[in-house]
Amino acid sequence: MPKPNVREQLMTAGLHTLHTHGFNGCAVQDITQAAGVPKGSFYNHFESKEALALAALDLFWEKGAARRIMLSDTTVPPLDRLRGYFRSIAAAADRAHYERGCLVGNFSSEMTANAAFRERLAQIYAGWSADIARCIDEAKATGQLKTALPTQALAAFLINAWEGAVLRTKVEKNGSAFEDFDQVVFAGLFA
Amino acid sequence: MPKPNVREQLMTAGLHTLHTHGFNGCAVQDITQAAGVPKGSFYNHFESKEALALAALDLFWEKGAARRIMLSDTTVPPLDRLRGYFRSIAAAADRAHYERGCLVGNFSSEMTANAAFRERLAQIYAGWSADIARCIDEAKATGQLKTALPTQALAAFLINAWEGAVLRTKVEKNGSAFEDFDQVVFAGLFA
Repeated sequence: MPKPNVREQLMTAGLHTLHTHGFNGCAVQDITQAAGVPKGSFYNHFESKEALALAALDLFWEKGAARRIMLSDTTVPPLDRLRGYFRSIAAAADRAHYERGCLVGNFSSEMTANAAFRERLAQIYAGWSADIARCIDEAKATGQLKTALPTQALAAFLINAWEGAVLRTKVEKNGSAFEDFDQVVFAGLFA
Repeated sequence: MPKPNVREQLMTAGLHTLHTHGFNGCAVQDITQAAGVPKGSFYNHFESKEALALAALDLFWEKGAARRIMLSDTTVPPLDRLRGYFRSIAAAADRAHYERGCLVGNFSSEMTANAAFRERLAQIYAGWSADIARCIDEAKATGQLKTALPTQALAAFLINAWEGAVLRTKVEKNGSAFEDFDQVVFAGLFA
């Protein structure tokens, strides 16, 4: 039976390596090397690089849950929560020097010829949209947001605009695109 | 001396192959095979796959000029021009079944560890922003757009929101993200 800690090492190293280099930009050997485990041990734990990458995408998403909690903190007005949430991701991207981007966006660009990735990404976007949509609905209900636009369209739009901003920060290696997002969304669209 | 038509064949096939599979998702041999030329002929024309990919990015951008002309058609009110421009890209993406996405966005996700790509992409974003910014400035000047938001932030935001929508259409294989963009930008932000 495979040792659980090797699987964990492969997951951690796999997520980091795939996030940094992309799926096609790294080989199984890069991952086992980063994990410090023998190459042969990989297939005791994962059927393929694809299987690891899907598990890494889940892990990436689960790690984000700690931040998504901000979106349901009812002690803060809903639009302030939303703004704080995006600012918190921006601060983390700054600490990481804008090098890796968002794994959800990276795989949306690279992996959508593969149905398993498309399905998993669609589920992630749907869950993310639901979290954002709840904030928007609350902001509408409390009168903090006055708009005739449907919540679903706004939630999807915000996520997409954010992912596009992430792409731009990878090119510019600064937070300018996040500042534009913050200003246009919260001092324009939602003002 | 290399025959000019081989270079052209490599450019056309290279752009299509890189756009479909990504830089790391294809090899020089995939490109020469798609071009119908011997593998050995590649290096008579390009120093590396990277050199071809940079030329393909330029070609992609140049091809977009035909559509960007819409943005300076002064017979149409500026915001209508802008809306028509994005709708025209959306229609083309629909005809291509949302399979390839935008090469600018794809390379922003995949190639920004490479300084030459980062530089070229930054130039492209700057040029694109300038075209969009002119429309926004005209819309402000004619009174079609009433906003206190700075033009530069709006132009960058629109491009980023668009690129994020493109990523989402690759996952969903439908135009929903483009419809959300159209509605939120033109019936919300700019209404």
